[in-house]
Amino acid sequence: MKQIGVGILGFGTVGAGVANGLLKNRQIMAERLGVECVLRKIADIDITTDRGVQLDANLLTTDAMQVIHDPAIQIIVELIGGTGIAKTFVLEALKAGKSVVTANKKLLAEYGDEIFSTAQASHADIYFGASVGGGIPIIRVLREGLAGNEIQSMHGILNGTCNYILTRMENEGLPFDVVLDAAQKAGYAEANPSLDIDGFDTAHKASILASLAYGFHVPMDQVLVEGIRNLSGMDVTFAAAFGYRIKLLAIVKRDGDQVEVRVHPTLVPLSHMLASVNNVFNAVMVRGDLSGDTLYYGRGAGREPTASTVIGDIGDIARNLAAGQARYRRGVCVANEGKLTMRSAAEINSKYYIRLMVLDKAGSLGVMTTILGRHGVSILAATQQAQSDGQQAQGHVPVVVLTHDAKGAQIDAALKEIEAAGIVSEMPVRLRMI
Amino acid sequence: MKQIGVGILGFGTVGAGVANGLLKNRQIMAERLGVECVLRKIADIDITTDRGVQLDANLLTTDAMQVIHDPAIQIIVELIGGTGIAKTFVLEALKAGKSVVTANKKLLAEYGDEIFSTAQASHADIYFGASVGGGIPIIRVLREGLAGNEIQSMHGILNGTCNYILTRMENEGLPFDVVLDAAQKAGYAEANPSLDIDGFDTAHKASILASLAYGFHVPMDQVLVEGIRNLSGMDVTFAAAFGYRIKLLAIVKRDGDQVEVRVHPTLVPLSHMLASVNNVFNAVMVRGDLSGDTLYYGRGAGREPTASTVIGDIGDIARNLAAGQARYRRGVCVANEGKLTMRSAAEINSKYYIRLMVLDKAGSLGVMTTILGRHGVSILAATQQAQSDGQQAQGHVPVVVLTHDAKGAQIDAALKEIEAAGIVSEMPVRLRMI
Repeated sequence: MKQIGVGILGFGTVGAGVANGLLKNRQIMAERLGVECVLRKIADIDITTDRGVQLDANLLTTDAMQVIHDPAIQIIVELIGGTGIAKTFVLEALKAGKSVVTANKKLLAEYGDEIFSTAQASHADIYFGASVGGGIPIIRVLREGLAGNEIQSMHGILNGTCNYILTRMENEGLPFDVVLDAAQKAGYAEANPSLDIDGFDTAHKASILASLAYGFHVPMDQVLVEGIRNLSGMDVTFAAAFGYRIKLLAIVKRDGDQVEVRVHPTLVPLSHMLASVNNVFNAVMVRGDLSGDTLYYGRGAGREPTASTVIGDIGDIARNLAAGQARYRRGVCVANEGKLTMRSAAEINSKYYIRLMVLDKAGSLGVMTTILGRHGVSILAATQQAQSDGQQAQGHVPVVVLTHDAKGAQIDAALKEIEAAGIVSEMPVRLRMI
Repeated sequence: MKQIGVGILGFGTVGAGVANGLLKNRQIMAERLGVECVLRKIADIDITTDRGVQLDANLLTTDAMQVIHDPAIQIIVELIGGTGIAKTFVLEALKAGKSVVTANKKLLAEYGDEIFSTAQASHADIYFGASVGGGIPIIRVLREGLAGNEIQSMHGILNGTCNYILTRMENEGLPFDVVLDAAQKAGYAEANPSLDIDGFDTAHKASILASLAYGFHVPMDQVLVEGIRNLSGMDVTFAAAFGYRIKLLAIVKRDGDQVEVRVHPTLVPLSHMLASVNNVFNAVMVRGDLSGDTLYYGRGAGREPTASTVIGDIGDIARNLAAGQARYRRGVCVANEGKLTMRSAAEINSKYYIRLMVLDKAGSLGVMTTILGRHGVSILAATQQAQSDGQQAQGHVPVVVLTHDAKGAQIDAALKEIEAAGIVSEMPVRLRMI
């Protein structure tokens, strides 16, 4: 059986998972693929810490360049992360004609153009299945399984930390801060959680999915990003009363020459499959013009799930190489570069959930609906739940309104006017609905 | 741009969907794949009926052999169905060195050995993504995305007709016969529904998934198959009261050298993702040793969803051909042929739901639990719900018991003894739980 040599750069959590998986399932993979993937080298600056993987000490080196240029290695797996030396090594490997597998979404989001064009120039493969969705093969699905579809929309839960926090907030009725603290102690959230909870990690992933679906580079600075840091438990409760669950969703849609990419807490109906995605699990629902709605669910992070996808990519390249294939357009399609523009937040249509703390319920509701109506926003449902004693004491009554589709600009203008009307005691809360 | 010629055999529902999709999304696909898939011929015995697809009349022919041997056609798409001429044409095409795409699960389940070996001998590709799961790319996921995983189990809802019937039985509290009748009138069930409702369609699909996961030919006659024909609305209601939803599941597991493949109505906890899969939708949950639980959801049948997957397969082959690839092990892995055996129904472990209609509640429960205990079956929960007047009048009281894991043989023996004890007025109902 043919053998294909694999070298890993970066022996951290995922690197150890990939090494372990390649060794553990070497036989099964060889039987399935008809080619053997042989782990030949692992480079890291630290080669002494025990990663819990049983391997020959000769496999370890501190010299990444030696791995990249080892003639017995055809596939370089970059698991260093970041955009520093990871970028240098990936480009070096591609230029040397080596195929590359990476899980580095930041590198692709920021330097995708350079990396894909280098791969194309060298006729080298670059696979990045684990850059979005961890153990969920969503990238493969978009590039291959749904290749015959016009992608109409994607809705994804792409950050396990946020989903874990939201699940606990709802199930246990706890405020955000308390759950974040618990999540940090349990190791489900970073000490500096901003990348996750402020939505940037989700936005990075959404931009990669949108680029793949629509064939153009999505400018991160034109992605609407709102995180869950300011989400109130009161809104989680109101949402539930209306039959919704709040999830941090990435939403990608195309309408003619405009694409919208946005990340925000979103009310999802309980009957929707995404409402059943709880705890650290991720999922993406993809609507194709032929396939209709399809959904892909699994663990979006973690050593083994991420390794599963990285190894799937290694297997594909190994099969290509073993077949002596002149590799062919395994980069990304950029046919729409310059042809599509990003829809602005002001122009994006959505249903809205609006909560006001009004000073005088009776009069306020009328003022509010009048103002919303003046801005062309029509109301789907409204309610005022029984308020707590504390709220009554302060004369604050929560009023919740669900709207039909409205543009961001309409809602912003209406809320500004409502604030100015002096009927509310604090900033209105505005969440989008699916 | 390179062009790859596509010929379709069978211009029925799916054939028309594939033709339509190839024409409609030709440009998008070409941009993504870097190669153009050109529909060159469609063969059918009926080329006059309007299928609602706008195409050049010159594309249509009644001569399938002409399509197969057309030098401008490299990919043959078999959408005739059945194991008669479909088999003849597929083998003819493979022997002529043409790559084949098929959605014909019956053909693969019954003649897979011959077809795959013919493909291998001719160095031709055979893709069959749409044979299981319609628009869900589950075959691709198993063959590629999860190729690095040991597959521990699969749980699937693979028949839209059954899932539609079960959803309506639960939501509307209707008996099986009434819903089946409505489903037939709505076109969701065949006039002869046996293949669907008796579980055979699901079993065919399960055997294909098991073969792919474990690398051996699954003998259909050793698959445990129970359908939903005899499912009582009373059990749907009791299951709901315990927090479960009844789904017709395909369950595939491996334990050492034994594989179990079974199809039966199954109690699924409401919190499980599969419980949220309703109406005609299908889904498969796959547990890999690295990936953990992943789930794939979508439309399991229908013109466009099936076409989506068929076209995805066409795209893959086109990319292989355009790259001048010597094709490589795109058949199925049979490395475990002769090494694995099927676990018998008697040996399969499961939790059980047992409902008895007892004549005298007080004494009967004791007799029943004693008998179960004697057969080593331990009880997880038991209940007797308020019975209807009719039941009381006849002296029949439903008693429901949920058990811990037990082997089929243990349950069978216990139920036989319970029947013989003269405490029940009708055959016990026995359903498995997830």
